[in-house]
Amino acid sequence: MNGAESLVRTFVGGGVNVCFANPGTSEMHFVAALDRVEGMRCVLGLFEGVVTGAADGYARMTGNPALTLLHLAPGLGNGLANLHNASRAHSPIVNVIGDHATYHKQYDAPLNGDIEAVARPYSKWLRTSTGAADIGRDGAEAVAAARTPPGQIATLILPADTAWSEGGEVAKVPSPPLPQPPPEEAVDTAARLLRNGRPTAILLGGAALRGDALLSAGRIAAACGATLFASYSVARMERGVGRVAVERIPYVIDQALARLAGFPQMILVGAPPPVAFFAYPEKPSVVTPAGCEIHRLAEPQHDLAAALAAVAEAVGAARTPPVLSERASTAPPTGKVTLPGLAAVIAALIPEDAIVIDESVTSGRGLLPATSGSVPHDWLVNTGGSIGIALPLAVGAAVACPDRRVLCLEADGSGMYTLQALWTMAREGLNVTTVVFANRSYNILKSELANVGAGNPGRKALDMLEIGHPDLDWCRLTTGMGVPASLATDLDSFHAALAKGLRTDGPTLIELVL
Amino acid sequence: MNGAESLVRTFVGGGVNVCFANPGTSEMHFVAALDRVEGMRCVLGLFEGVVTGAADGYARMTGNPALTLLHLAPGLGNGLANLHNASRAHSPIVNVIGDHATYHKQYDAPLNGDIEAVARPYSKWLRTSTGAADIGRDGAEAVAAARTPPGQIATLILPADTAWSEGGEVAKVPSPPLPQPPPEEAVDTAARLLRNGRPTAILLGGAALRGDALLSAGRIAAACGATLFASYSVARMERGVGRVAVERIPYVIDQALARLAGFPQMILVGAPPPVAFFAYPEKPSVVTPAGCEIHRLAEPQHDLAAALAAVAEAVGAARTPPVLSERASTAPPTGKVTLPGLAAVIAALIPEDAIVIDESVTSGRGLLPATSGSVPHDWLVNTGGSIGIALPLAVGAAVACPDRRVLCLEADGSGMYTLQALWTMAREGLNVTTVVFANRSYNILKSELANVGAGNPGRKALDMLEIGHPDLDWCRLTTGMGVPASLATDLDSFHAALAKGLRTDGPTLIELVL
Repeated sequence: MNGAESLVRTFVGGGVNVCFANPGTSEMHFVAALDRVEGMRCVLGLFEGVVTGAADGYARMTGNPALTLLHLAPGLGNGLANLHNASRAHSPIVNVIGDHATYHKQYDAPLNGDIEAVARPYSKWLRTSTGAADIGRDGAEAVAAARTPPGQIATLILPADTAWSEGGEVAKVPSPPLPQPPPEEAVDTAARLLRNGRPTAILLGGAALRGDALLSAGRIAAACGATLFASYSVARMERGVGRVAVERIPYVIDQALARLAGFPQMILVGAPPPVAFFAYPEKPSVVTPAGCEIHRLAEPQHDLAAALAAVAEAVGAARTPPVLSERASTAPPTGKVTLPGLAAVIAALIPEDAIVIDESVTSGRGLLPATSGSVPHDWLVNTGGSIGIALPLAVGAAVACPDRRVLCLEADGSGMYTLQALWTMAREGLNVTTVVFANRSYNILKSELANVGAGNPGRKALDMLEIGHPDLDWCRLTTGMGVPASLATDLDSFHAALAKGLRTDGPTLIELVL
Repeated sequence: MNGAESLVRTFVGGGVNVCFANPGTSEMHFVAALDRVEGMRCVLGLFEGVVTGAADGYARMTGNPALTLLHLAPGLGNGLANLHNASRAHSPIVNVIGDHATYHKQYDAPLNGDIEAVARPYSKWLRTSTGAADIGRDGAEAVAAARTPPGQIATLILPADTAWSEGGEVAKVPSPPLPQPPPEEAVDTAARLLRNGRPTAILLGGAALRGDALLSAGRIAAACGATLFASYSVARMERGVGRVAVERIPYVIDQALARLAGFPQMILVGAPPPVAFFAYPEKPSVVTPAGCEIHRLAEPQHDLAAALAAVAEAVGAARTPPVLSERASTAPPTGKVTLPGLAAVIAALIPEDAIVIDESVTSGRGLLPATSGSVPHDWLVNTGGSIGIALPLAVGAAVACPDRRVLCLEADGSGMYTLQALWTMAREGLNVTTVVFANRSYNILKSELANVGAGNPGRKALDMLEIGHPDLDWCRLTTGMGVPASLATDLDSFHAALAKGLRTDGPTLIELVL
């Protein structure tokens, strides 16, 4: 058995069953091994940002790492932006990156590069295998590293000769450490704050936004009059009718400052303290009010459900009924496209148990309030701010959850970074319905330009903020990759197209002109 | 004057007049400054790989750096693959990358990252500005660093507050060192080898493939019976009728070994020793024959024209007429598409003084021999092996040389990495005629899989090598970005479409189905 085969067998034996791939020559033995080993689904992306973003989506929905298969330093480079986003989501991912054969490195062939240097900024675990006999063990440790709470990125570099040489040994994937509850003092402090009568914000992150953890947070909020928040950059939250409602901290700095102004104390549960997405002249970096007491109940790697259950117990809220979102009116508006209108159409049509991927940027600012009373669903957003993740994330989520519908809400500017994901949706027949909000501009940058005090843009500056001239035709781009597409120019046609897309097998896309 | 404006004024004053950009919030003051300063053309790309590849194309055609404007670490990440290629081309480039405000970094906002770490592997010069008063000087030094022979990548990181703060000072760009001739001993050794009666290969790189340098090489070859070669990965070569013909070393390892087998000695002129693109089991890494005496006449940073003139003088060839390429028959073939047939059509239609960008991979293997007798033109290829450079390179070459036609020969697999470049061609009205060779596969990987001894691919492996299922429709993808496109399925329709494209103003694309 060669090294590559031992690695694939190690992964499959260790419960890693999906590989998002854009391979090259140095990965050919890994690819060939897929034919000999059952149990590894390999999904091709035509660009590496699709591959890494899909691995993020898969990880967010399963908690389990997928592999990415990438080609040397430049291939990794192309995947780096979505690894940045994945690192902010604490997504477990194992990157497998082929390199030149060990003896060939010295000749500095054209594709040679320092893969470790490119990988290091976004890899919590990083190793270059040194021989066929070690690859299985290295792969097993990479998986365990990726699964270490709260989930992290592990990168394994595979010189071609370590993959093709005989002597591979299958290894057993070690069990990762279990997430631990936070120290008792942290629970006591949280309980004390919640009982001191001052308005309390509870900021939830990671697994605190789902299942029993979210329920406990809802009980605490109900019992103590606290307010539940999520970071603007949230990896995945469960929401909709019958679930505990959580408010996302606004992106816009003035709105964030205003919303948090009334909270002299905040409890963090697996989330970092809230800060401005960017710095703006004359505005603070921290969006909590001056003097706000910030208490870290639990870090992302802790058992957040246990932490919240312990706090609920300590404040006598273990059986307090939480306030749950109620079903909203679903009468869909018609006529001209408006932001509240499109949000209401989406709210009315979100399918039961859907996975909603939201990178709608300025077009989607009204979506969360509008959909809190929709049928239960998961909501995933861009966690790292590097735009171009929604389409790949939708690929990964759909591969992870073939029985659920994926609704992908994408801005036109963002979508262009990784539009190749549409082809993968077509090839794999994924049940992804994408809406592209076509405002033909990097609309957010227009307000950002004003916010940073750069004045009124002239023609040259505006040309950098507008992506019209010429307008993108998303229907052509989409059908060009084998995905059916339609154009919507009012809320009526949008409603009809979205409803149709959501009941159609396989991917579809709707370009909604704003 | 704020820091950003001082930087733009410094660049313009120093002769840097083009900026390929994909900006975000942290670059807004730089963008705003463009409105206030004359003389900087700013070209928007919808993906950073377009931006960096375009800067490479611009640099290869002008010898002068363009700027790239990129957004934090992930934006740089997206541009890294084509910076890899540019570094192999020795292209001068100045990356300007916005970062969070200095005081905001500590809060680790979602987009925060280690930009220097991501930049370091491909930056020969790297600095983070520390204040508005320093930015002008930093920018001036970055330009000088980029212009240092043979040309290199300089990266300047601009924290947002250094850009928006007052106190900017315009700086003068220092003159870079001039390229020096190589040591006399190196010339003497070359002359001695050329006179010893053994077959000599002369491997030309960089500026040795153009102008007087190429002419001197031709004189030497004619006088001494030497054979002129270029590396497979050549940044830019001048060729066609009336020019000195140079043979490119083949990509395929067995062909390279066979071609160089008869040369016991090789003289390197600004080129590295030829090695295999990848390692293959049981095959050598070095493609020159065992015992071949390799003499480094000049390194890439040397004055290659002076080096070759000195050798020509030393061997008495200063006035020897070189062998020049002769006009080939231009009767274009018709009928079914074949590789020799499409090469002949292209050979017949290359316009005078055209810039040909070749990333045709397997479909273009016959192009160079077929076109050696075409009208004079420049030929640019992928220098670093990271596919997805041709379309961006065409953008940059067309911006650099508005009076010349650009013919971009692109493989379908490669084109998908950076197809967003088509939109920039449309916006800027660039005279680029693109041919996409649609074989619906990563065809090269099929032979590579065999070459590395990975056996016959099964269904799962083949799915990673074929990009059909579904087929890409390049005409839709292209018109979706505002570029006219047509389909060619035989040599007749290909000839007609190519001829029409080359006489049409602005960009066009032809999808040639293989």
